[in-house]
Amino acid sequence: MNYPESVTIVEVGPRDGLQSEPEFVPTDEKVNLIERLSDTGLRRIEITSFVNPDAIPQLRDSEKVAARLQKRPGIRYSALVPNFRGLERAIEAGMNEIALFVSASETHNLKNVRMPVKKSLSGFRRIAETALERGMQIRGYVVTAFGCEYEGRVPPEKIEYIVGEYLAMGVGEISLGDTTGMANPIMVRRTVRRLKPLLGRTALALHFHDTRGTGMANVLAAIEEGAVIFDSSVGGLGGCPFPRMIAGNIATEDLVAMLHEMGIDTGVDIDLLMECARYARIITKRELPGHLLRAGRIDWQGRPLEKA
Amino acid sequence: MNYPESVTIVEVGPRDGLQSEPEFVPTDEKVNLIERLSDTGLRRIEITSFVNPDAIPQLRDSEKVAARLQKRPGIRYSALVPNFRGLERAIEAGMNEIALFVSASETHNLKNVRMPVKKSLSGFRRIAETALERGMQIRGYVVTAFGCEYEGRVPPEKIEYIVGEYLAMGVGEISLGDTTGMANPIMVRRTVRRLKPLLGRTALALHFHDTRGTGMANVLAAIEEGAVIFDSSVGGLGGCPFPRMIAGNIATEDLVAMLHEMGIDTGVDIDLLMECARYARIITKRELPGHLLRAGRIDWQGRPLEKA
Repeated sequence: MNYPESVTIVEVGPRDGLQSEPEFVPTDEKVNLIERLSDTGLRRIEITSFVNPDAIPQLRDSEKVAARLQKRPGIRYSALVPNFRGLERAIEAGMNEIALFVSASETHNLKNVRMPVKKSLSGFRRIAETALERGMQIRGYVVTAFGCEYEGRVPPEKIEYIVGEYLAMGVGEISLGDTTGMANPIMVRRTVRRLKPLLGRTALALHFHDTRGTGMANVLAAIEEGAVIFDSSVGGLGGCPFPRMIAGNIATEDLVAMLHEMGIDTGVDIDLLMECARYARIITKRELPGHLLRAGRIDWQGRPLEKA
Repeated sequence: MNYPESVTIVEVGPRDGLQSEPEFVPTDEKVNLIERLSDTGLRRIEITSFVNPDAIPQLRDSEKVAARLQKRPGIRYSALVPNFRGLERAIEAGMNEIALFVSASETHNLKNVRMPVKKSLSGFRRIAETALERGMQIRGYVVTAFGCEYEGRVPPEKIEYIVGEYLAMGVGEISLGDTTGMANPIMVRRTVRRLKPLLGRTALALHFHDTRGTGMANVLAAIEEGAVIFDSSVGGLGGCPFPRMIAGNIATEDLVAMLHEMGIDTGVDIDLLMECARYARIITKRELPGHLLRAGRIDWQGRPLEKA
């Protein structure tokens, strides 16, 4: 079994995590979190979302976050953009990278953005064109790519169709999201294997949730199919705290620790990352789903270190 | 990638889970849990431990549990046995299968049973001989097989030595325990690959903990190396509830759900198993670490069903 020498982590906690927090996290604390994450060796961070502030009030300070952030050279900061107005705001805020998103499930897309998938995609064309003209990088999310709470399994043809549309727009990276934690390792293998020949020079990222405990197994399956880019969230930010702590995104520090233990490099300093996870716990004022935050990490000789 | 058609689950919750509960679970509730588990299609259940009741007061009712239990035909019920006195008690209680245990780490074994590994193993010989004469089946645990909180990584030679001793005693199955949640998929692959040629007709089980979020990834890695027997605990019983919920054993229902989603049979009815997990939550009077207990399971079409 051949494993890659290194894997790229796309940290999505400040956006995908904080957008679902019950309480608004103050702007300065968001900026602190992103800057601390920038010091860990992470090279990709999704910092916010230029959505309607009434729709997601937790991220209503996206302009302020982008303005106050001391951007480090060599780090790709991106922001989610739902529509052309979002792109304009991202441009004004000086972003160099945007992320688009559409569901593989019609019902989920209707509930999420109140339009059919086809209409989402046609709206993206103008956004992508403008962004590319300005030299911005574009990531395209396929949300509910491994199943949807309304429609169940999503046909592979639907994912291929969306990926094809993204490719036609010149998107540089596709991220397949297991939004509902319904993926399993065989499904992941089949999906990656099916998509790889279509992608050409476009990168493929996987975005797994640990809702049903399969997040890291799905990472492993994807790695074994050649995937080398994974989204994750510091502390596991983004899970649902009530009534019981349900996991959402896999925790970045859990992922980095497993990869390092396997001898796969991420460029990330795990100690600094654990500090970020503890800081995320402080600013969200709640227990987070990340495993290492609760169990403590282990060192390279296999001894457990601090309790977190 | 070839996956097996079916996998055998060894349910260890009533012993490995309940032994670490802060509160004593009443005998009738233990028996109820085991009988409900027996109705799910599980074929292997570790029901208790014949240890010194002062050492593990949570299982001080092991004789009563064994006596009150209505044993179902076709199910292998086993009990942990630390010494010859434990075997005598297990025989009196009518058990047909016992499990022995020793740590791969000297320090861990000293702290656990106050003797060196070698002395543990030499004590097992008489136990095994007597048990085999009576036609009992024997399982041999290698605890901390993937790392120890005191000594860190365990040399593979140490595991081979213990396995060799177990084989010489006529043990029918070895279970490698990741007691501290320190295993990673590459280590699992290497360990299984190394041991398989030594085992002959002796079965190999893997006993993973999800302490650091890698439990299911380790299951996947082991399956990919040909392993087909896994220990798990209903509801994830056996984690540490305080101060933060730290996961211990992987939850049986999480494991069964992932395997079924992958098309791998376990013989277990997931709905009945979910009822057992909810019952485990009731009798332990606390939130349990199992993912499906919190997120709800999904059906075969991929739709989520009940919230648990």
